[in-house]
Amino acid sequence: MPDMSPLSTTSPCQLARRSGTAIWRQIEETLAADILAGARTGRLPNETELAAHFGVNRHTVRQAAKALADRGLVEVVHGRGTFVREGMIAYELGRRSRLAHSLAKARRIGVSQLTGQRDNVAESDVAEMLELPPDSRVTRIDTLDRVDERVVGVCTQYFPLPRFAGLAEVYQQLGKTHLALAHFGVTDFQRKLSRISAMLPTREMAQLLGQAVTQPILRVETVYVDADGIPIEYGISHFDSGAVQLVVEP
Amino acid sequence: MPDMSPLSTTSPCQLARRSGTAIWRQIEETLAADILAGARTGRLPNETELAAHFGVNRHTVRQAAKALADRGLVEVVHGRGTFVREGMIAYELGRRSRLAHSLAKARRIGVSQLTGQRDNVAESDVAEMLELPPDSRVTRIDTLDRVDERVVGVCTQYFPLPRFAGLAEVYQQLGKTHLALAHFGVTDFQRKLSRISAMLPTREMAQLLGQAVTQPILRVETVYVDADGIPIEYGISHFDSGAVQLVVEP
Repeated sequence: MPDMSPLSTTSPCQLARRSGTAIWRQIEETLAADILAGARTGRLPNETELAAHFGVNRHTVRQAAKALADRGLVEVVHGRGTFVREGMIAYELGRRSRLAHSLAKARRIGVSQLTGQRDNVAESDVAEMLELPPDSRVTRIDTLDRVDERVVGVCTQYFPLPRFAGLAEVYQQLGKTHLALAHFGVTDFQRKLSRISAMLPTREMAQLLGQAVTQPILRVETVYVDADGIPIEYGISHFDSGAVQLVVEP
Repeated sequence: MPDMSPLSTTSPCQLARRSGTAIWRQIEETLAADILAGARTGRLPNETELAAHFGVNRHTVRQAAKALADRGLVEVVHGRGTFVREGMIAYELGRRSRLAHSLAKARRIGVSQLTGQRDNVAESDVAEMLELPPDSRVTRIDTLDRVDERVVGVCTQYFPLPRFAGLAEVYQQLGKTHLALAHFGVTDFQRKLSRISAMLPTREMAQLLGQAVTQPILRVETVYVDADGIPIEYGISHFDSGAVQLVVEP
């Protein structure tokens, strides 16, 4: 085991002595703290090694590893061991880059699927983000983002009407937002603002993402503007935090 | 109730008919889906109104609201009602802006507290981020970020040695990273890269942040470089997702 800061590490002796918390939970906490502090990467020691290190049986270690996996911190690769999560999709929040661009750069295959559509009067939040007067109408589409055939994102996008009337039908055929926007003559647009937060998914969202309801999602709200600075899209994406991380390179 | 997309809304009738899921949980899900889709903001209808809308008793509605609060989606303001979470600290991930700058801009008082320090050989991840050869030494500091007297962030920062030898002592006196860096002659530096992910906190971290262990944290890893492009700091911050959101304005 590497030499670690007293803040992030509980020695095996301290583990055994702490009361009121199950031993496997204490092991989970210790490993999680090290992973979060960047002090543990790659493959975890195997069950036998961990059991010996913590002075517990393998069952206890297995419970700890299972809990880490449920939190999305590690993944079990059958036959190879337990790894600190890496190989994540890096979605670059650049001025002109959308998720599709980050995927193309990483040579990963992204496919979006339209799951719902509705024209409606904009809620106050949506109107504000799109800088629309009250009671303006917007078209809303709901989509799933699949990467390498796995659903990684659940998205809702709003576009002002009447400018983008019929966008859903176009999107359905073209499968990408930037292509649908180009159909409406918008070929030059940029990210004006992204707001990022973390939360737990709804059950429905967790089901769509194929993840545990205990695993957080990354929520990214973005406003895109056209070449004249006029908002054209307000998108809210919810990503599986075990599959996607965001990258900012100012 | 506003008119909402079929994707995010279950009508009261459907609610009553779904089986296998507690009614309060179905109500929680419905409200959470609306909040996440941006279709519900501000104050939630009061218990009596929600109970009437969903055709349930107030106790059931209260359970749903409690669950939403545990997830960090709403907050209960005593005597005023339940509000969709807003008024969050917006940490702008700009080229030259650190959290301290975003707080100053918002006229909020940020104080950082040193909780641990250690000089050590860099773990492989840390060495990679700081572009150091293997077996290089770094100084690590652990801090708590307080805003308006509430802990909102738990941070670990690594600085290369011998360049920043004694940084912890300086930080202890000056209380801000950029002031400590200035002490070492680094007055011009910028964010090279930030990676953002979401996860659940460790118990220790949740305790420090004064939040539930079920509420996700936002993890921001950042590499800062000096005017010559040489990495000077690798920081890992964990923020209470109920208090902090990140903002990117490319």
